[in-house]
Amino acid sequence: MTANSTLATAQRSLGDPTIRYPLWPALTMGCPQTSTATISYPVEVDYAYDSVDIALFDPGYAAAHAISPSAGIERWAPLLPPLNAPSLGEGGTPLIELEPGVFIKDESRNPTWSHKDRLNRCTTSAALRAGASGIVVASSGNHGAAAAAYAARAGLRCVVFTAEDTPPAVDAFMHAYGAVVLPVPVADRWPLMHKVVEDCGLYPVSNLTTTHTGHAFGAEGYKTIAYEIHADLGVPAAVFVPSGYGELLYGVWKGFAELRRLGVTGAVPRIFACEPAAGGPLSAAVREGVPATEVAVGPTDAYGIDCSVGGYRGVVALRESGGRPLLLSDNELHAAQRELASSGLWAELSAAAGLAGLRQCGDMEGPVVCVSTSSGFKDVSVGLHTSEPVPPEWAEVRRRLRSAGIDA
Amino acid sequence: MTANSTLATAQRSLGDPTIRYPLWPALTMGCPQTSTATISYPVEVDYAYDSVDIALFDPGYAAAHAISPSAGIERWAPLLPPLNAPSLGEGGTPLIELEPGVFIKDESRNPTWSHKDRLNRCTTSAALRAGASGIVVASSGNHGAAAAAYAARAGLRCVVFTAEDTPPAVDAFMHAYGAVVLPVPVADRWPLMHKVVEDCGLYPVSNLTTTHTGHAFGAEGYKTIAYEIHADLGVPAAVFVPSGYGELLYGVWKGFAELRRLGVTGAVPRIFACEPAAGGPLSAAVREGVPATEVAVGPTDAYGIDCSVGGYRGVVALRESGGRPLLLSDNELHAAQRELASSGLWAELSAAAGLAGLRQCGDMEGPVVCVSTSSGFKDVSVGLHTSEPVPPEWAEVRRRLRSAGIDA
Repeated sequence: MTANSTLATAQRSLGDPTIRYPLWPALTMGCPQTSTATISYPVEVDYAYDSVDIALFDPGYAAAHAISPSAGIERWAPLLPPLNAPSLGEGGTPLIELEPGVFIKDESRNPTWSHKDRLNRCTTSAALRAGASGIVVASSGNHGAAAAAYAARAGLRCVVFTAEDTPPAVDAFMHAYGAVVLPVPVADRWPLMHKVVEDCGLYPVSNLTTTHTGHAFGAEGYKTIAYEIHADLGVPAAVFVPSGYGELLYGVWKGFAELRRLGVTGAVPRIFACEPAAGGPLSAAVREGVPATEVAVGPTDAYGIDCSVGGYRGVVALRESGGRPLLLSDNELHAAQRELASSGLWAELSAAAGLAGLRQCGDMEGPVVCVSTSSGFKDVSVGLHTSEPVPPEWAEVRRRLRSAGIDA
Repeated sequence: MTANSTLATAQRSLGDPTIRYPLWPALTMGCPQTSTATISYPVEVDYAYDSVDIALFDPGYAAAHAISPSAGIERWAPLLPPLNAPSLGEGGTPLIELEPGVFIKDESRNPTWSHKDRLNRCTTSAALRAGASGIVVASSGNHGAAAAAYAARAGLRCVVFTAEDTPPAVDAFMHAYGAVVLPVPVADRWPLMHKVVEDCGLYPVSNLTTTHTGHAFGAEGYKTIAYEIHADLGVPAAVFVPSGYGELLYGVWKGFAELRRLGVTGAVPRIFACEPAAGGPLSAAVREGVPATEVAVGPTDAYGIDCSVGGYRGVVALRESGGRPLLLSDNELHAAQRELASSGLWAELSAAAGLAGLRQCGDMEGPVVCVSTSSGFKDVSVGLHTSEPVPPEWAEVRRRLRSAGIDA
């Protein structure tokens, strides 16, 4: 669907940007040289930026190069790691104008209905290149299901270590693609993942380090969100991003930073990290002035982003963009979720964190974009209640309509 | 997002194509002149085809006219009814190559994760134009939720008469957008809908007639699926469409027929209607040589397409395209659902009917397209089971991996 090939050249340490590694093997545990016993530093992918044809960002580029509307993130192949895993048509999600100047980037429009598909296209490609027979992932939901889908599509096995309290609809979702789904206590997920990587040779596509690093290629997939926002809108004043480990945050930042570096744009948006107040490792890291830290996580329904450890990527994205972290209560998240639904967008609670962040900041010079990461089907409450039948008499129906404020 | 305006001119009877009605008011109960006590004939929208600039179908058209990638079906505004309801970015779904020559049109990538969003953008637009304060719909799932979403987005109230045995995740889905959801026995839905239309002035966006007609504008939204397939692939040899009332079937057919009429293409694909064997009103109508008929519906999990009445639109689409109806058992549907999942696409059982139809036909000169209408989250079984925790010891995990065929 595209004739483009990658301009990726190497991996580069975020701990010390002068340290470079070859592009292969992709590093799955961050930068070995700069990481310490308490802080793990991620790596990122470097590209031959001088060789990028910036016509790539012209509106007519896809048509001129016979790139299909279904090409997905491959549309941006020169600035991505090699995409040898088959596509599921990820990316190309719409930007919906919620009110004048406020836009929702609706990531529930991906193949498994979350932003995680962009990451998994990249990491599954690396697994294939590494010759692995399968992949392994620790996830409470979207990442696990997306990994299962891309593994299935690529003919790889997939093992998902997941939480014991997975919502029932999400449980069905993670099982749908033929993965081996193993619900275990959160504290056991990482040791077991290490065993599966070391003893069985499965390829890891989620984090394995003390503070978050994850796979070298993951955040690269998220950059395409920035490219797409730019294609739709130009450069917004701010982007509000639901944040767990900060990979998405960093990817969105890096995409805009690349557009500026390439001379396509002159400015970058401020990036705001939207964390649940129940945890908030990035807020804590910024407050303490450290590269990453660990926090206790209290009760929250925002299970998609309730992380106890953060990662250095988030600190970099906030510092470089002039943004800041925001802590959102479940009440604020629920209000944002209701606001989205009242405009026709049903988002998972964690996904509403972007809009909740904007609302916490109050009025802001626009345009602004709030990323909504995932569909309401993944919410904790889905499937727990069913409606009672209504007696099918007109008097009863009329009573229901009137009590809902409908003139009947 | 687009400067285009509609070229719609009138409504035209399918019962007698020489009978025309003004474009407004949109007919919500089919053609009053040709319908009888037993057969209701739908109407369709006519356009000033001679005025269509066929550059509309060029790959570079959107870029050349500054149409945003998020414009949704508005991209094709000249050949749609007036779209005055706000967009949720419907349409623009990807075509995924399942195997060489076999493509899946993944309609789960719409705003409420089914094809119904294309219809509801059109019908909600008509409701706004009619000055209604709200809409009313009878639906077992996708149509009701999509109507609720577009109504919410447009500031209209929405009443959904739904089935009493709605799957729990679908129940949450229909409630998500603030609609009044009333589960009643199927036989009571239509009389109650008539009351709500007549007594409360709500605007109907689903069928109200003996055999199916539905809203005049609904199938128009589905035409855009044909335009998009053409943009991605050209004209396939065949399209396999999950079929309930036959509106989607007709829309896909009409889109391709328009491309031929406008001279954009020389051929049209054969259209295959994929019905559950438990019912199959279109298969029965074709067998009996009648415009539409009613059948008894036996047990099936394909609740999205288990209709007892059909409509004349389906007969027209099959006859004009040289296609035919196919009856699929639940076993065939489940096999197709598994096949899609094993390629990374989790579809509702009803949505897998397109691929099931192709598999029933066996090898076929390609390329062929199977429409997959909706996401697996809408399936009857979702939310009924949850996984048991796994003891987090390596010996136990290894046992599970080995029993799944993973070398551990």
